[in-house]
Amino acid sequence: MSVEINVVRQDGRNFDELRPIKITRNYLNVGEGSVLVEFGNTKVLCEATFENRVPRWLYEENRHAKERHQPVRGWVTAEYAMLPRATEDRNQRESVKGKISGRTQEISRLVGRSLRGIVDIYELGENQITIDCDVLQADGGTRTASITGAYIALKDAIQWGKDSGFVNMGAQVLKDSVSAISVGIINGQPMLDLPYVEDSSAETDMNVVMTGSGKFIEIQGTAEGEPFDHSELVNLLKLAEKGNKELATLQANLYK
Amino acid sequence: MSVEINVVRQDGRNFDELRPIKITRNYLNVGEGSVLVEFGNTKVLCEATFENRVPRWLYEENRHAKERHQPVRGWVTAEYAMLPRATEDRNQRESVKGKISGRTQEISRLVGRSLRGIVDIYELGENQITIDCDVLQADGGTRTASITGAYIALKDAIQWGKDSGFVNMGAQVLKDSVSAISVGIINGQPMLDLPYVEDSSAETDMNVVMTGSGKFIEIQGTAEGEPFDHSELVNLLKLAEKGNKELATLQANLYK
Amino acid sequence: MSVEINVVRQDGRNFDELRPIKITRNYLNVGEGSVLVEFGNTKVLCEATFENRVPRWLYEENRHAKERHQPVRGWVTAEYAMLPRATEDRNQRESVKGKISGRTQEISRLVGRSLRGIVDIYELGENQITIDCDVLQADGGTRTASITGAYIALKDAIQWGKDSGFVNMGAQVLKDSVSAISVGIINGQPMLDLPYVEDSSAETDMNVVMTGSGKFIEIQGTAEGEPFDHSELVNLLKLAEKGNKELATLQANLYK
Amino acid sequence: MSVEINVVRQDGRNFDELRPIKITRNYLNVGEGSVLVEFGNTKVLCEATFENRVPRWLYEENRHAKERHQPVRGWVTAEYAMLPRATEDRNQRESVKGKISGRTQEISRLVGRSLRGIVDIYELGENQITIDCDVLQADGGTRTASITGAYIALKDAIQWGKDSGFVNMGAQVLKDSVSAISVGIINGQPMLDLPYVEDSSAETDMNVVMTGSGKFIEIQGTAEGEPFDHSELVNLLKLAEKGNKELATLQANLYK
Amino acid sequence: MSVEINVVRQDGRNFDELRPIKITRNYLNVGEGSVLVEFGNTKVLCEATFENRVPRWLYEENRHAKERHQPVRGWVTAEYAMLPRATEDRNQRESVKGKISGRTQEISRLVGRSLRGIVDIYELGENQITIDCDVLQADGGTRTASITGAYIALKDAIQWGKDSGFVNMGAQVLKDSVSAISVGIINGQPMLDLPYVEDSSAETDMNVVMTGSGKFIEIQGTAEGEPFDHSELVNLLKLAEKGNKELATLQANLYK
Amino acid sequence: MSVEINVVRQDGRNFDELRPIKITRNYLNVGEGSVLVEFGNTKVLCEATFENRVPRWLYEENRHAKERHQPVRGWVTAEYAMLPRATEDRNQRESVKGKISGRTQEISRLVGRSLRGIVDIYELGENQITIDCDVLQADGGTRTASITGAYIALKDAIQWGKDSGFVNMGAQVLKDSVSAISVGIINGQPMLDLPYVEDSSAETDMNVVMTGSGKFIEIQGTAEGEPFDHSELVNLLKLAEKGNKELATLQANLYK
Repeated sequence: MSVEINVVRQDGRNFDELRPIKITRNYLNVGEGSVLVEFGNTKVLCEATFENRVPRWLYEENRHAKERHQPVRGWVTAEYAMLPRATEDRNQRESVKGKISGRTQEISRLVGRSLRGIVDIYELGENQITIDCDVLQADGGTRTASITGAYIALKDAIQWGKDSGFVNMGAQVLKDSVSAISVGIINGQPMLDLPYVEDSSAETDMNVVMTGSGKFIEIQGTAEGEPFDHSELVNLLKLAEKGNKELATLQANLYK
Repeated sequence: MSVEINVVRQDGRNFDELRPIKITRNYLNVGEGSVLVEFGNTKVLCEATFENRVPRWLYEENRHAKERHQPVRGWVTAEYAMLPRATEDRNQRESVKGKISGRTQEISRLVGRSLRGIVDIYELGENQITIDCDVLQADGGTRTASITGAYIALKDAIQWGKDSGFVNMGAQVLKDSVSAISVGIINGQPMLDLPYVEDSSAETDMNVVMTGSGKFIEIQGTAEGEPFDHSELVNLLKLAEKGNKELATLQANLYK
Repeated sequence: MSVEINVVRQDGRNFDELRPIKITRNYLNVGEGSVLVEFGNTKVLCEATFENRVPRWLYEENRHAKERHQPVRGWVTAEYAMLPRATEDRNQRESVKGKISGRTQEISRLVGRSLRGIVDIYELGENQITIDCDVLQADGGTRTASITGAYIALKDAIQWGKDSGFVNMGAQVLKDSVSAISVGIINGQPMLDLPYVEDSSAETDMNVVMTGSGKFIEIQGTAEGEPFDHSELVNLLKLAEKGNKELATLQANLYK
Repeated sequence: MSVEINVVRQDGRNFDELRPIKITRNYLNVGEGSVLVEFGNTKVLCEATFENRVPRWLYEENRHAKERHQPVRGWVTAEYAMLPRATEDRNQRESVKGKISGRTQEISRLVGRSLRGIVDIYELGENQITIDCDVLQADGGTRTASITGAYIALKDAIQWGKDSGFVNMGAQVLKDSVSAISVGIINGQPMLDLPYVEDSSAETDMNVVMTGSGKFIEIQGTAEGEPFDHSELVNLLKLAEKGNKELATLQANLYK
Repeated sequence: MSVEINVVRQDGRNFDELRPIKITRNYLNVGEGSVLVEFGNTKVLCEATFENRVPRWLYEENRHAKERHQPVRGWVTAEYAMLPRATEDRNQRESVKGKISGRTQEISRLVGRSLRGIVDIYELGENQITIDCDVLQADGGTRTASITGAYIALKDAIQWGKDSGFVNMGAQVLKDSVSAISVGIINGQPMLDLPYVEDSSAETDMNVVMTGSGKFIEIQGTAEGEPFDHSELVNLLKLAEKGNKELATLQANLYK
Repeated sequence: MSVEINVVRQDGRNFDELRPIKITRNYLNVGEGSVLVEFGNTKVLCEATFENRVPRWLYEENRHAKERHQPVRGWVTAEYAMLPRATEDRNQRESVKGKISGRTQEISRLVGRSLRGIVDIYELGENQITIDCDVLQADGGTRTASITGAYIALKDAIQWGKDSGFVNMGAQVLKDSVSAISVGIINGQPMLDLPYVEDSSAETDMNVVMTGSGKFIEIQGTAEGEPFDHSELVNLLKLAEKGNKELATLQANLYK
């Protein structure tokens, strides 16, 4: 990857450098976890709601499980949304339009899957945690910031559940940590953590969700312009691994 | 009103005292006006969007006006919404439900009317300003905080319009300032600026929108429990006038 | 209020005069109460539906109340709507649009609150009364006519419930009567009971819901043009008290 | 058809007798045609809206027609709906449900087709007439009453269009009159004009739309219970022809 | 009917001739009945779903019936839809539009009624059969082909229910067979089984649903252009009876 | 990858073997491209609609481009849907539910992006091609089959556009071919082309969209169970490259 030496990014970062990352716990008074996560100018509010109940479909499944003396489980889900003026131009509210866009649903599902990838829902017991990720300000990477912040809100909510007696104090609900970062190819150059201005001109855009122990939970790579070849893919994955490793460290430091 | 001397409110305030009010301008980087307004624990983000165009219906009206050599005008509107976990219990997103509640629409309309009450839309020119009031945290008085904060976001957006050349520098778009406060009767005692715990037990609940010069733009009073009589009404209005006067001073001080 | 002596209203009324009011009971064969109410050219059909059941949410609440040996209660609600050609121009049906406007919801909620303000829902027992207010012809004051007529439909439905054995014969379900009237300021002159032509040019528009005993249930005043001052407010309230007093007498006379 | 001599109908009518039919013109002040039509206890308000414009799709077609020097045309359409408490049990509003039932759409389309069957839309010119048929009270035959009343509202609206100069005074817009009646088989006996109590127990139910000159515009026959044979079909059609002939006479008499 | 001797149809058929009819059973691997029915170029996939349960409303009715020692019953229903490119021009998906057209609902209801007309739902037991009729290619007569094919899918599903033990082996669920055909008048000439090109130019269009034993279940005749008289009606019914008789024979032959 | 030698798949295939693939061109008479694609029991109908127009948003963009003497372009999009009984259990229609699921939207967007990845939309000219992928029968891999079949429908539609004179005969609209295949890890074993039974038990599931020349357009990998490590990722990509290479050959052979 010697070619990228002379690349100058608009914000002065090196090609393999994250934007300034800031994670604030207990941001609001409501929410069993309340986190403001910032990736540069991207700001996402992650609010966790802990409920001592499970969705109807799981309630039924657990009932059957109990009848068969099998273990019951909880659920973790997420909802992603953007405030109308999170972006440079105002977007119409999805509540006003009366329907959720495909993009919103796609990201909500992605955040939920990413969290469930590191949760042992049997250890959670018959509880449900919902993480609301509301983008206050968007400058690229809103889904990766959401996942990274949602993990902290989730962790705090699980602790709340233990402190409140809904989850066993010794339960190992979290099997690992999780974070996400975007990588992309711009003018042939792989880059880490794209702000909007880079993202919109990237030939290839990839979001990589990883655990703190370095495994993959989700890879979503799309050639917006030219298809990418095997070696470009390898370079992108390397960058993403570097970025996620740094995020995992930042997350861990919040609990030191 | 000598009877209320011994009332003790849960947060220690006197019956005629506002909660701590905090208005932060330029809260985010996006938005032609960006304000965080706090009435105690109630926090509302007010983002103004200035657009150099008008809604379709007004575009047609202005076209006809021009043909008749009459003046054209702009538009000011507002949208109110709550984040799902702004409250103690999580509410389902209106975008997910696929429709906006009557309450949400009622408040959006109220905020818009309140702002238009102090705007000269002819002086605004063919421009449109939308104020998004998104409640981050709700503890009673979200509509009054929204109006009070929306005014600041509006004022900043008009200045942006002037600085950007869309509005005449000398235009008197704002005829006055506007703020709003709630009053209510609790156990027979009129009180100012109700937090959720008081609001939910009030016999009568009234929201009063006033101009900086002390006139009324909107009065909405509802007997939740017992109907109220003429003298109670007079007492409530007095309290509201006191509260709004203080808010108007706070608003004015932001521009000193 | 000596200034208004020379005002000539388009329909020849004095400034403090109601339009011809007509309330017809048993207008249709269906409905446990069936009322046609006319405020001049405004005609609203108020149909009451009495059901010996309560909504799901109240069913649950009553179940809990019973377990705790607390009293159970009923529910009174209302739905307001306009026929598409009630007005001079045809409006698209809300069923065809697929959603209810904010205005429709606002008025439905207002009518419901106004009725509940004079009902003892514990005396009603576990019954539900729904009042449908459908505007056949609209000429201003549809919401005030709806409330005034809905009260009669409600009263008849309660009697039906007693005659049918669903409500205790001696139950004091109604604590008072309720009516509503609009007042407004036109060219600086306060006026009572505005038809459409006046309503659309009023600087201030206020709807006042009062009990037969002269107390307030709801006040909704809006400055459409210029904000109004304290003395104008006082004058408007006086007019509204006069109008509601006359309506209360008309309502009472229907049962003599 | 000698077998039916001894049939006794609940309302005392002969098997081939219509219910009392009443058609009131100019029922309300709004609407270019305003008709209350009553078939026994079934009451439908038919309001015509005349507009000097055509729907978008027809506007485009007419534009192309003009370019090719072909004649342009107008449009006639209808919307059917029921008030929530038109029936013995209250139905939820379709506006509240957020969608129109199949039944409502089916009848709206039927009424529209029936009217267009006797209209020369080229003679109407570039005008649009919408007939709103709102059922105030339903006791069977709401769709046949709607068609029968809608014709009168349509005729009055066309006259209004002529008087207002939108339609050529000599235009032959109406080619014929139109009415509709239901017939059915009950306990093997064909009967005319079924009220709800008969309709709900009929083995076969047929709605027949006919012109004043005795031709068919629409036949909709459904075996609700037992399929019907050829001779039963013949008998039903005979009854329907008799009923429609009487309705046509009643309609014609309104203009004498 | 001697006049029609010289009619030449675009596809070379005689006026009283069906298009080539093809019914393929077990077309797919899923579905308890899976039928592809072809009326010329019209191709409809009819998939039956057998479920050992009934809809909620019937579940309640059956529960009451059991309490009164009355027989319980099952349900047969149908859903009709068109793929977006079944026609020459692509239609927007109804799922994307977010609502079902009146036409789609009308046909779904017609297919359901037609099937229930020959089913003894008490013999079916507490089971539910849903027939999905999805039009792959549309060239006129999609509703008649749907009914004709749906009957075969239904019959196969009932047999599956017997083989699976959900329906009594000796139950006489089907009282008869059912088929449907369109007839129409084109240039004054009655014709059988109209493809799109004929259907769109027909003055009168009629769909006739009949049993294998020659009785009528549903007649829907509409004058698209000129109203039709009694003798034309008689001729159309004759043609329809001929066509349905041939369809009934084709259906019966599938089980020989 | 020597470990997988002894794996026995339920359908007898080797771990790196595709299911029987069948692609039928000109499957129906409608559609400018009409393809039935089968991956084992998965059957998807891919219908292409060629229109000599572009969506509104692109129409505006092209208009601006023309003003600036820049090249104009066309558009390629796709819609994916499942028939209600494509699966073992019937799913409610999305048109009946009134909204499209997140899954449906996600796949529609994926298919569209995949096709646009190999199309030069400037060479297409101001034309729009829509590919409808309707799943008749689903047994895993419906999105990969859709992409693979959609490419053939697209290629045929472009040829139709050339033959019809809407696209320049020499235009190089297609830059490459495109296909897609699923890979997954089951019991630690990477496998190619998963049917439903394997897909639902896979720990990791990955869909890989590739060009005929071996480049990547989209990678979507999700750890359903355990997160996967770098070497597993490498193995999955190898399998996917093998599968897509075979699909590309099959696609190419259709035009020999």
